[in-house]
Amino acid sequence: MEIPVRVALVETSHPGNIGACARAMKTMGLTDLALVRPRQFPHAEATAMASGADDLLARARVCDTLVEAVADCTMVIGTSARPRSVSWGNMTPRECARAVRRHTELAVARGGSLPCAAIVMGPEKTGLTNDDVSLCAALVQIPASPIYSSLNLAMAVQVLSYELRVAWLAEAEAAGPLAPVEAGRALPATAAELEGLHEHMESVLTAAGFLHPDHPHQLRLKLRRLFHRAKPDRDEINILRGMLAALDPRRRGNQR
Amino acid sequence: MEIPVRVALVETSHPGNIGACARAMKTMGLTDLALVRPRQFPHAEATAMASGADDLLARARVCDTLVEAVADCTMVIGTSARPRSVSWGNMTPRECARAVRRHTELAVARGGSLPCAAIVMGPEKTGLTNDDVSLCAALVQIPASPIYSSLNLAMAVQVLSYELRVAWLAEAEAAGPLAPVEAGRALPATAAELEGLHEHMESVLTAAGFLHPDHPHQLRLKLRRLFHRAKPDRDEINILRGMLAALDPRRRGNQR
Repeated sequence: MEIPVRVALVETSHPGNIGACARAMKTMGLTDLALVRPRQFPHAEATAMASGADDLLARARVCDTLVEAVADCTMVIGTSARPRSVSWGNMTPRECARAVRRHTELAVARGGSLPCAAIVMGPEKTGLTNDDVSLCAALVQIPASPIYSSLNLAMAVQVLSYELRVAWLAEAEAAGPLAPVEAGRALPATAAELEGLHEHMESVLTAAGFLHPDHPHQLRLKLRRLFHRAKPDRDEINILRGMLAALDPRRRGNQR
Repeated sequence: MEIPVRVALVETSHPGNIGACARAMKTMGLTDLALVRPRQFPHAEATAMASGADDLLARARVCDTLVEAVADCTMVIGTSARPRSVSWGNMTPRECARAVRRHTELAVARGGSLPCAAIVMGPEKTGLTNDDVSLCAALVQIPASPIYSSLNLAMAVQVLSYELRVAWLAEAEAAGPLAPVEAGRALPATAAELEGLHEHMESVLTAAGFLHPDHPHQLRLKLRRLFHRAKPDRDEINILRGMLAALDPRRRGNQR
């Protein structure tokens, strides 16, 4: 059984880790790998560590930005080894896997194409930046020992891929029928559509003096978190962007 | 939280894998490592791959036999990448983790000392021999992709250790009260005590012509499986050995 979930690795330092991640994914039936600004790729060490999973490397998409790597996905989940200052939606690997499967089923039922979801892993030493996290609907944290939490990148991919596989192997009916609030909604927004909304909103709010270009950070993150929680579909994104256009002070200036 | 479960690695070929296993264990709070006939140990590559988990390597016990490595444990679970000819009790990693926690709680309640349980991993290429498996109460199998199931040894240790940690972190009450059939029983038999029973039984059955020294294999395994399922405690082991002594044809010969 193929598990239709993308793994996006951001700025991986060691090419061997890319190969080991590909191997970990393939053992669990995942095949869709995206690499954002890998330091060295392709590389002999990546191929050596992939050990039979080099087909994933050959098909891996190399991207300049994380937005590009997950643009077509309607659920993006980041990984984090530590708690964040602005608490994002936090999930265990098991909760993450169930949410990803459920989301994928809903999105496919509404005509979405696979993969609908991506798991994003940051650089080995530093993890995801706050900008990367702001693209994510939630963060998944592997419950490592507080004394020694240094999971290798590929080990983390192995654990998350394993939980995804277990979630997909579970009885289909476990997911249950669609919640009434979900039925009849449009296709979920893609990461690119959501990012378009956020950029639009930030531009309007900055023009209105609500966001300050110098220190917009915490407030920006909180707004993004709010909309990630709301999970807007495409119709709603269009409505929100229509609202923003109508509220844009630069436009009011033009109208005066 | 320390997870009181031993990991026993049998005839590991690559010292780097021993180090990577130690690291995987330590990230999940496991600390008790036993090495049965490692090809090279200690070794610089093991230390390098342990990457901060070298304290586990320093404390690792090196043994000549698997029986020695798990002698004090009252539950021994093997790992298998493939189905076996004689079907042993098969578990998923999640079932394994819950069973190990449950067993540990029961054993500690009856005065057993930690660790009560061990997970056994075979050599990288070949897996556990049937003799090794016959020491195990059950086999755990990671649900890998049938197309590509080649999990690295340390990756398998990571997944199993992760499930053990999740099981231990789960609410204590999930385990529930002792089943009536369990209450009032003596301390579970250790692997060494169970092995003593099996050797005694096989010796008696061979003397009786029931087991043939040339081809005792399938029958031996089936008998062992039966007693693993029965999970005898110490009193019961003593009773069984008393029975065997009484039934031994060599003894009857002496009495005649």
